[in-house]
Amino acid sequence: MAAEEGQVAVTVSNKQVIFNNYVSGFPKESDMSIVVGEINLKLPESAAGGLLLKNLYLSCDPYMRPRMRNSSGSYVGAFQPGSPLSGYGVAKVLESGHPNFEKGDLVWGSTGWEEYTVSTEPGQLFKIQHKDVPLSYYTGILGMPGMTAYVGLYELCSPKKGEYVYVSAASGAVGQLVGQFAKLAGCYVVGSAGSQEKVDLLKNKFGFDEAFNYKEEQDLAAALKRYFPQGIDIYFENVGGKMLDAVLGNMRLRGRIAVCGMISQYNLESPEGVHNLASLIMNRIRMEGFIVSDHYHLYPKYLEMVVPKIKEGEIVYVEDTAEGLDSAPAALVGLFYGRNVGKQVVKVADD
Amino acid sequence: MAAEEGQVAVTVSNKQVIFNNYVSGFPKESDMSIVVGEINLKLPESAAGGLLLKNLYLSCDPYMRPRMRNSSGSYVGAFQPGSPLSGYGVAKVLESGHPNFEKGDLVWGSTGWEEYTVSTEPGQLFKIQHKDVPLSYYTGILGMPGMTAYVGLYELCSPKKGEYVYVSAASGAVGQLVGQFAKLAGCYVVGSAGSQEKVDLLKNKFGFDEAFNYKEEQDLAAALKRYFPQGIDIYFENVGGKMLDAVLGNMRLRGRIAVCGMISQYNLESPEGVHNLASLIMNRIRMEGFIVSDHYHLYPKYLEMVVPKIKEGEIVYVEDTAEGLDSAPAALVGLFYGRNVGKQVVKVADD
Repeated sequence: MAAEEGQVAVTVSNKQVIFNNYVSGFPKESDMSIVVGEINLKLPESAAGGLLLKNLYLSCDPYMRPRMRNSSGSYVGAFQPGSPLSGYGVAKVLESGHPNFEKGDLVWGSTGWEEYTVSTEPGQLFKIQHKDVPLSYYTGILGMPGMTAYVGLYELCSPKKGEYVYVSAASGAVGQLVGQFAKLAGCYVVGSAGSQEKVDLLKNKFGFDEAFNYKEEQDLAAALKRYFPQGIDIYFENVGGKMLDAVLGNMRLRGRIAVCGMISQYNLESPEGVHNLASLIMNRIRMEGFIVSDHYHLYPKYLEMVVPKIKEGEIVYVEDTAEGLDSAPAALVGLFYGRNVGKQVVKVADD
Repeated sequence: MAAEEGQVAVTVSNKQVIFNNYVSGFPKESDMSIVVGEINLKLPESAAGGLLLKNLYLSCDPYMRPRMRNSSGSYVGAFQPGSPLSGYGVAKVLESGHPNFEKGDLVWGSTGWEEYTVSTEPGQLFKIQHKDVPLSYYTGILGMPGMTAYVGLYELCSPKKGEYVYVSAASGAVGQLVGQFAKLAGCYVVGSAGSQEKVDLLKNKFGFDEAFNYKEEQDLAAALKRYFPQGIDIYFENVGGKMLDAVLGNMRLRGRIAVCGMISQYNLESPEGVHNLASLIMNRIRMEGFIVSDHYHLYPKYLEMVVPKIKEGEIVYVEDTAEGLDSAPAALVGLFYGRNVGKQVVKVADD
């Protein structure tokens, strides 16, 4: 049964962030529109096995940029012009047509950029069990970005004590965790970011051994040689392009590169060329791309590791919270200019 | 004891191929000189634990091009201007100061481009056990190139029955074996090469399912889409540059790329840019460089597999043999123009 018998459905306003049209170059706020429609707070017949969600937090993530392009090249579908954006979020179940969920449950996973969402794919949602942490963490450290850092570093790169680890976009949703996880594994960790404020965070808050502002470096390869005179064992790739080239020239024997993202390339019409790939041969390097959703079966194991460390303050997490759906377009656009300091999240409603 | 007591050492002429100076662009015959010196056929005191070798076959291999550059970038040292080139070869032991070898043994491994070589590193030589195959095979299918094909395909790419395999430089010393090994594993195999003669070899001699002449394709990515409408599971990379870009755009989910060499890049002052690396993420691709000498502990296992298949005609091997040391410079230069058809070897002397 989709709706409880005898219940009178209430109609409320439902603010949405609409994707206007496909984007080239950097996205702009005007590529999105805020519209206010209405929604009947009742699971429609057409979504009988689904959920009616009230969205609490929405996540701004770099992988959303490729979805703004009209191409089949991406691993997730393009946004539909005229429809709300979609992405990761935290929501409360208002009504459930699915046996695994009930009214009042908190969930994280795929949802719409709007106040209320009818989810027809509850299989894409995780029920939130640990509620004694900030709920917004399920868009970050306890959600997709946390799993991304965990899988990319531990599963793909197998860090060993004493190894040299470099993280680009290091203060972001994923990078700040990669650095802290690598420190837990006994590695020497250097991160780069795009402002002095972020560099300070890396060194003083996240415990990176060293950090630098890549925008102040004329020669990225020389900067890396300065911070890694012995070379780099593990590179967690969030950036692509020139940074990857500089890293390839500074890798150590049997180095590993987890290719998580290439945010520097997402707004270019054609991606930059990478020239130093012969380093893969000379240095016997393994370079591997991954999509975190292939690894969600490891989520319980990850929670078991990370939740106690959050509670004991061994791992910290910095968020940049935009208040209200109205601020969501600017928050998403800001991500591609590096305006966020820490994980960019949008708070839509209180619990 | 370096020399047997009472033996009178004979002095003979020793023709050598001298490396004149560091090379930029394509190597030319004039980058090498043939000189005739003399050698005392006696292991000198200074090489007491070494071997005196008579060279029978020398191998022309693409990795020799980076050794012609004055840089520390390569995984093997640069050639010394004024000294003979060195490389893989097959030789006969004339005198041994090492307990593992004795006079009359046949060996393969590192030797000089000359008639006689004093080897001070017998640890780099393998004693030849199977003599009922052509001796020259130890520069190819039973030597470094054979192990390269074996390790790159089987160890790095784990081919599964029914997978789609693409091999570039497919008629060369390594490529012809990668294709045959992939067929043995039950894969669908397509190779590319640079002439109709080579394409015919791939299809008619080596049993590739399809083959094409890359020089006749305006659009490599389109050619690959034609031969692999479903995409490529495994790419054995011998070429680099534009070919790698075209392949990256045609890889399947969870594809694997063994990076063996990038011969198209070796003569360029600065390597071409590769633009499609975001495919690593979208398609969860693992790309791994390797150096065969890291894997020589697998040589006995490889011999056990391949020697019976050679004898039974299940695996064939095509060589392009240049006669005499005088022809060695042209043979080596020809490799970088694709003049060789099959494995390029130089015959120096009869047994």
